[in-house]
Amino acid sequence: MSKQEIPYKIYLEEHEMPTQWYNVRADMKKKPAPLLNPGTLKPMTFEDLRPVFCDELVKQELDDTTPYIDIPQEIRDFYKMYRPSPLVRAYCLEKKLDTPAKIYYKFEGNNTSGSHKLNSAIAQAYYAKEQGLKGVTTETGAGQWGTALSMACSYLGLDCNVYMVKVSYEQKPFRREVMRTYGASVTPSPSETTQVGKKILAEHPGTTGSLGCAISEAVEAATHKEGYRYVLGSVLSQVLLHQSIIGLESKAAMDKYGIHPDLIIGCAGGGSNLGGLISPFMGEQLRGEANYQFIAVEPASCPSLTRGKYAYDFCDTGMVCPLAKMYTLGSGFIPSANHAGGLRYHGMSSVLSELYDQGLMQAVSVEQTQVFQAAEQFARVEGILPAPESSHAIRVAIDEALKCRETGEEKTILFGLTGTGYFDMVAYEKFHNGDMVDYIPTDEDLKAGFDGIPRFPGNME
Amino acid sequence: MSKQEIPYKIYLEEHEMPTQWYNVRADMKKKPAPLLNPGTLKPMTFEDLRPVFCDELVKQELDDTTPYIDIPQEIRDFYKMYRPSPLVRAYCLEKKLDTPAKIYYKFEGNNTSGSHKLNSAIAQAYYAKEQGLKGVTTETGAGQWGTALSMACSYLGLDCNVYMVKVSYEQKPFRREVMRTYGASVTPSPSETTQVGKKILAEHPGTTGSLGCAISEAVEAATHKEGYRYVLGSVLSQVLLHQSIIGLESKAAMDKYGIHPDLIIGCAGGGSNLGGLISPFMGEQLRGEANYQFIAVEPASCPSLTRGKYAYDFCDTGMVCPLAKMYTLGSGFIPSANHAGGLRYHGMSSVLSELYDQGLMQAVSVEQTQVFQAAEQFARVEGILPAPESSHAIRVAIDEALKCRETGEEKTILFGLTGTGYFDMVAYEKFHNGDMVDYIPTDEDLKAGFDGIPRFPGNME
Repeated sequence: MSKQEIPYKIYLEEHEMPTQWYNVRADMKKKPAPLLNPGTLKPMTFEDLRPVFCDELVKQELDDTTPYIDIPQEIRDFYKMYRPSPLVRAYCLEKKLDTPAKIYYKFEGNNTSGSHKLNSAIAQAYYAKEQGLKGVTTETGAGQWGTALSMACSYLGLDCNVYMVKVSYEQKPFRREVMRTYGASVTPSPSETTQVGKKILAEHPGTTGSLGCAISEAVEAATHKEGYRYVLGSVLSQVLLHQSIIGLESKAAMDKYGIHPDLIIGCAGGGSNLGGLISPFMGEQLRGEANYQFIAVEPASCPSLTRGKYAYDFCDTGMVCPLAKMYTLGSGFIPSANHAGGLRYHGMSSVLSELYDQGLMQAVSVEQTQVFQAAEQFARVEGILPAPESSHAIRVAIDEALKCRETGEEKTILFGLTGTGYFDMVAYEKFHNGDMVDYIPTDEDLKAGFDGIPRFPGNME
Repeated sequence: MSKQEIPYKIYLEEHEMPTQWYNVRADMKKKPAPLLNPGTLKPMTFEDLRPVFCDELVKQELDDTTPYIDIPQEIRDFYKMYRPSPLVRAYCLEKKLDTPAKIYYKFEGNNTSGSHKLNSAIAQAYYAKEQGLKGVTTETGAGQWGTALSMACSYLGLDCNVYMVKVSYEQKPFRREVMRTYGASVTPSPSETTQVGKKILAEHPGTTGSLGCAISEAVEAATHKEGYRYVLGSVLSQVLLHQSIIGLESKAAMDKYGIHPDLIIGCAGGGSNLGGLISPFMGEQLRGEANYQFIAVEPASCPSLTRGKYAYDFCDTGMVCPLAKMYTLGSGFIPSANHAGGLRYHGMSSVLSELYDQGLMQAVSVEQTQVFQAAEQFARVEGILPAPESSHAIRVAIDEALKCRETGEEKTILFGLTGTGYFDMVAYEKFHNGDMVDYIPTDEDLKAGFDGIPRFPGNME
């Protein structure tokens, strides 16, 4: 198609928006390994998970056979406030790169949470509300997930308690204030409000916290408080299910204009955005209906897919959560100060890990100075100021488009632009001032991530 | 029409976007008073303005007879990156307020500048580029305008020098970094780089600057540098012309669904957003084709329309700019610390001033604690975190909708949601902590704004 025929932004009509989420596990012949109960080492059951997650979400977490799940009307109404998100043709970037490649991105940043996180936050809050719960607890690092959950809870009239990693709480006061605007209570973690928090504070006075520790606190708070449940913004299969809205909309928009992406690229931290983006395309591939190349992009400083182990591991530092089989750097791995906050997780979604292990998806890691170069280049021609996380995908999309310039191939590239960088200007400032450094963990650093983690048969080898 | 028939968000198709701006002055029987040369007190001519603005913009500034002006293709292409902006039906707000009123808002915040300012920034940068200039200079207070101009200049490859009010430069480092991301040079004002800056620094060592002072510096920098011109983000008639895209899109979207707004509300600082929003509707009214009620909302702390004088006055503190006939608090007026940065201007667009003087538009002023209450209420149900400026319009839209609840009237309300508040969290934090105070200038305060301003025949009486 010629430039004239495809608009800069493709918006679906409201009536074209998906009415069901897509569960990619249903089309996987070899399913992702089940979560294990850390006490019994047996697969987690509905009853095991009920004290932690609300019932409907437990069902979704355990369901690896139902391909389509209806999106409740109230969630669909909420989606209409900020969705459909635009599928953008990056005409200006293509021109700047002088590439024959056609570049598209699905932009999820135009809502106040600043990212795709809202897609799952409203779903998780909705089911909690439906179950008659009073509220939910969660952790947040960079703050997008906490903000998204605050927005969803405020809309539904649900109480929202956020454990925010202390260093972020102090360095990102604006994020905190956005959450307060939406009525959430925000506690710096570790805190004195939980046993696990007290223990960590006693052992490490003056610690600035970590995501793994904040998860442990939020889980404890939920399970010890009447009428509360814990919610999580990534990694879980239920989250990938909700995030499939990204891929479903992308696919519907592309189908409308007869566009076939050759290459689909997304950044990967816990995997929620990448999993959501690729799900319906991967489904086609699994069913033998189409062929795509998928690339997961992770930071060189936290390379779970490219340098991790495929093994059962804990999802949190406190070891209170179930065990998940995933590509992991070890739940004891402490990522260096990397500004792409949302990508600093030691593990990766079980679904994506299994797809990667089966060779259905590729993975690359990139260094952050390269990422910020791509971010700035993108901002200057496409107008949007990208989040550092999203910019990992931009980096590889640009690299692939430049390869096409060399080879003359007219590949169609689709990447996920998960969010905006308005609250990441400290990192941009470092980049502008030349103070940003790259960090690649040594093999020794990586080994340390597995220290102190209990071994059990068949794992961690 | 029923709820089902009107979507949450109305997006025009790309081919439905306006191809011409609308110049409301063409339909005004009594025209706005011309700019005066401060030396001769005669109307500014093309030649008078050429050293300051680029040629095409001077023409647009002086043209009060041509109703429609073509939007050049390159600007239309740029618009396509972030426009059409959505016209949103505030279903959730209506429900929350339990009002029979139908509320719509035109949302201009979904671009990186965070506001409608980009609509004129790209136009002004484009004409500068067309004239073969090297760059432009400007001032910025809160930072939206500076960011918008940086984005436009970066896209076109034009140099961009921003004089940023020193207090904002220091308190809003993130805004500064966004501008740097787009390659702009940002100088805290007053600075040693201009004569007027040096003079002010010598007279007031330690001053944190003002918008009026930054304007004077930017004008001096432009007129003393080969290949540079000055650009301004509000007040001027050319800016209202470019911003008419807001109203034209709103009207096209409403016409498409057969919606007639009874009441059109916008916040007013210099008048760029309000003027742009109401222009095409006002045009219909001036031509006797339709009837609307228009309301300008200004901060009680800087009430140029509701408590100012309709007189010729200087546009800047340094008195280097032309004189404009406008509602003014006096160019010596110093607004109190009011967080709605973009509404802290002593004067008002000549076009809007004249329309107000003819009784074609109403004006109200509101206090900022009331404004932030409305902002928070809006954010919690509509999801969008509004800028303090925009929230002035939200306040009055809510008040009008609540009146409808009392009277049972089913009024259709349209208001302009000019921008997002991501960089205004310091103000939100003050509000959350109960530290925000209202300030209403006394009659004495208002008198002081006119001290030291030269009198000349027929003015300032």
